[in-house]
Amino acid sequence: MPRPKPLSGFPEFLPAGRIAELAVLDVVSSTFELHGFAPIETRAVEPLEQLSRKGEIDKEIYVVRRLHADAGDADELGLHFDLTVPFARYVLENAGHLAFPFRRYQIQKVWRGERPQEGRYREFTQADIDIVGQGALAAHHDVEIPLVAIDVFEKLRRDLGLPPVTLRVNNRKLSEGFYRGLGIDDPAAVLQRVDKYDKIGPAAVRELLISEAGLDEAQAAACVMLAGISAADESFVDDVRALGVEHELLDTGLAELAALIRVARNSAPDRVLVDLKIARGLDYYTGTVYETFLNGSEKLGSVASGGRYDSLATDGKTTFPGVGYSFGITRILAPLIGKGALTASRSVPSAVLVAVDNEEAREQAIDVARRLRARGIPVEVAPKADKFGKQIRYAERRGIPYVWFGAGYDDSVKDIRSGEQTPASPSEWAPPIEDLGVTVHA
Amino acid sequence: MPRPKPLSGFPEFLPAGRIAELAVLDVVSSTFELHGFAPIETRAVEPLEQLSRKGEIDKEIYVVRRLHADAGDADELGLHFDLTVPFARYVLENAGHLAFPFRRYQIQKVWRGERPQEGRYREFTQADIDIVGQGALAAHHDVEIPLVAIDVFEKLRRDLGLPPVTLRVNNRKLSEGFYRGLGIDDPAAVLQRVDKYDKIGPAAVRELLISEAGLDEAQAAACVMLAGISAADESFVDDVRALGVEHELLDTGLAELAALIRVARNSAPDRVLVDLKIARGLDYYTGTVYETFLNGSEKLGSVASGGRYDSLATDGKTTFPGVGYSFGITRILAPLIGKGALTASRSVPSAVLVAVDNEEAREQAIDVARRLRARGIPVEVAPKADKFGKQIRYAERRGIPYVWFGAGYDDSVKDIRSGEQTPASPSEWAPPIEDLGVTVHA
Repeated sequence: MPRPKPLSGFPEFLPAGRIAELAVLDVVSSTFELHGFAPIETRAVEPLEQLSRKGEIDKEIYVVRRLHADAGDADELGLHFDLTVPFARYVLENAGHLAFPFRRYQIQKVWRGERPQEGRYREFTQADIDIVGQGALAAHHDVEIPLVAIDVFEKLRRDLGLPPVTLRVNNRKLSEGFYRGLGIDDPAAVLQRVDKYDKIGPAAVRELLISEAGLDEAQAAACVMLAGISAADESFVDDVRALGVEHELLDTGLAELAALIRVARNSAPDRVLVDLKIARGLDYYTGTVYETFLNGSEKLGSVASGGRYDSLATDGKTTFPGVGYSFGITRILAPLIGKGALTASRSVPSAVLVAVDNEEAREQAIDVARRLRARGIPVEVAPKADKFGKQIRYAERRGIPYVWFGAGYDDSVKDIRSGEQTPASPSEWAPPIEDLGVTVHA
Repeated sequence: MPRPKPLSGFPEFLPAGRIAELAVLDVVSSTFELHGFAPIETRAVEPLEQLSRKGEIDKEIYVVRRLHADAGDADELGLHFDLTVPFARYVLENAGHLAFPFRRYQIQKVWRGERPQEGRYREFTQADIDIVGQGALAAHHDVEIPLVAIDVFEKLRRDLGLPPVTLRVNNRKLSEGFYRGLGIDDPAAVLQRVDKYDKIGPAAVRELLISEAGLDEAQAAACVMLAGISAADESFVDDVRALGVEHELLDTGLAELAALIRVARNSAPDRVLVDLKIARGLDYYTGTVYETFLNGSEKLGSVASGGRYDSLATDGKTTFPGVGYSFGITRILAPLIGKGALTASRSVPSAVLVAVDNEEAREQAIDVARRLRARGIPVEVAPKADKFGKQIRYAERRGIPYVWFGAGYDDSVKDIRSGEQTPASPSEWAPPIEDLGVTVHA
């Protein structure tokens, strides 16, 4: 075959990039576990009718069928485009075996047939957390979710050098209550236009609200003023009240959002902002909504988002309300890894290369490698008996810091960075801890 | 939606099962890394013509297309059915950026549209290692691969209680050389029939070789005798020689297989057997082939297999010969997890539940949880202010061993198994190490 070309929208990394991605995923999953989220994995496919039922993204679905499907094959399947819809199905399917509120995390690929562009992929990895109740789910879980998110992002910043983030929150009850208090009958139509605030600006949103959503001048002006409110504390409540609109749902939304920002301000100062123009596209959100921006890379759009959904999963008798949050792992990492801004200290796990003097001595080299591995040291054996210099270059090319010489008869180990070579025993020697594993840093 | 039913052939686990699977994958990947294999991940889809070019499994491919594909969409895509074909493509695509011999591992889902049955799935996880050279790859790598495999399986046995395995090896050069030495022109036709040895027995294979592959009585008898040879050491060489067939390729195959079993016998006694009826279905193997059976569950078929392929990847100028091995993770685990034979000590990561006396005290509970997590202890906060007994039952249901009471004013922690309750500080107390993480055992 001629040299294959990459498929647009399906990013793949070289080994050092994948090592960096795995280091990030390790921080993400271990932090989820510290917060008591249990792992699950769902199949890649869902019945097509389930996928096309929710949201407005049926255009983006990939259909899956067997190359030689039988006439009797009833189920049309599609690749999942997020992890929320499959999770809702999983909860309904397994409700009898789960303990509620059920806290789960899930890190998997998802697929969307969108036109590939900067920050948009056809295959990408998401890392989701959700908390789902049976019948009811307390509002304090809406406060908990952003604290988990900030815990993850702060560790990624501290341990791996990723940029800091700002999490922006709103509450659909607040927006919808406000709109209804203004006498607007179709809050969704308003929300859709407000969603364009960052792209087209407040004046253009105001015009759309009048020309497309049928609002009068005063309504449109009030909606745009609401969208313009943001704050790092509970002061936003007064700003909203000052607009003079009253509605019961608005009160609920204000109280929920105020509770969130109060706790967030204590636990994660400067990382969470109330921002009343945050709308989120997907139609299943019913309360709190979250978006997250990398400081300095706001143009990339929200890299992690989520919200409260009160009626995504129901079996007719019981409803399972939930709140969740999804990290766009590929969206965050692909630009950093692609530019080499996030890299691994070496392209292989090996800390040691065991040199082979001649092919007759290979079994002794294998034995030294075995003894080092038994003590947790990643090792590879030279693929070819070769001269001193060539063995060093083999290690250098991969970033392996140590070369082991004289395996089994005159054992010594050389730090190829300093050139220092010392006698060593395969049952005693170990590299310094900072050389043992690959380190990843931006 | 009514309660959804599972899709046949697409296994999913409950959280405790997924925790068990992740514990297995952690052993697998960390062992791969100890042997110097670097991680990569490839996209789920490949161009359809690449997938249908190799082997005889085009029937089993899942085709992927956008629900609203444009007329101009040229690329027909399919889900990969193994990780070897995508890896070969990855090597060709990135050859200029890789250091050879390139050692990689890859743990991903694969899809086959087969009829689901015991041990056969439509979606399943494989864990692959491969070593690929540029132009050439030394034969000693064929010896190395089974040692890595045995290292993995021995750790799974020792640490997680999985059953021991036997790895059975053959060499296609040996078989093909033997057949050619008998004057047979189409060795592949013979290999295909010999592949059925375990299912239909030697007498039936002999008949097929005569009726279908056109062999004479003497040729068929010799082929069946060859297939019947197995050994735990180099003695098989004499057994083959005793059949009186001579061919240069046979000599090469015998030497390679003898070297393998000699090293394996030293490094992993009783785990590797020469078995000359092992054939492997896929047509890209050109030398050593491996199959692996769980002792006592041989009926399940080979749970991990692989071999040497000298011409899978070529760009016309350079060939990239390789040797690899694929662990059928789902095939091994789905029966064990399904039967509850491999389980986790609890269904959530949390070691501690912080009780909440009343909703006003929730923020103090959140603060205790934060301080415990900062020291690496997985914690969740009770979702509801509740009585003592209900908090205990919440923990019991999930297997959480400790409940924290009096958060922030009269801190104490109770081991709900022993009932022992002691005063504790959130900045000092830690559970015993065996309670910190979830343990997984068969």
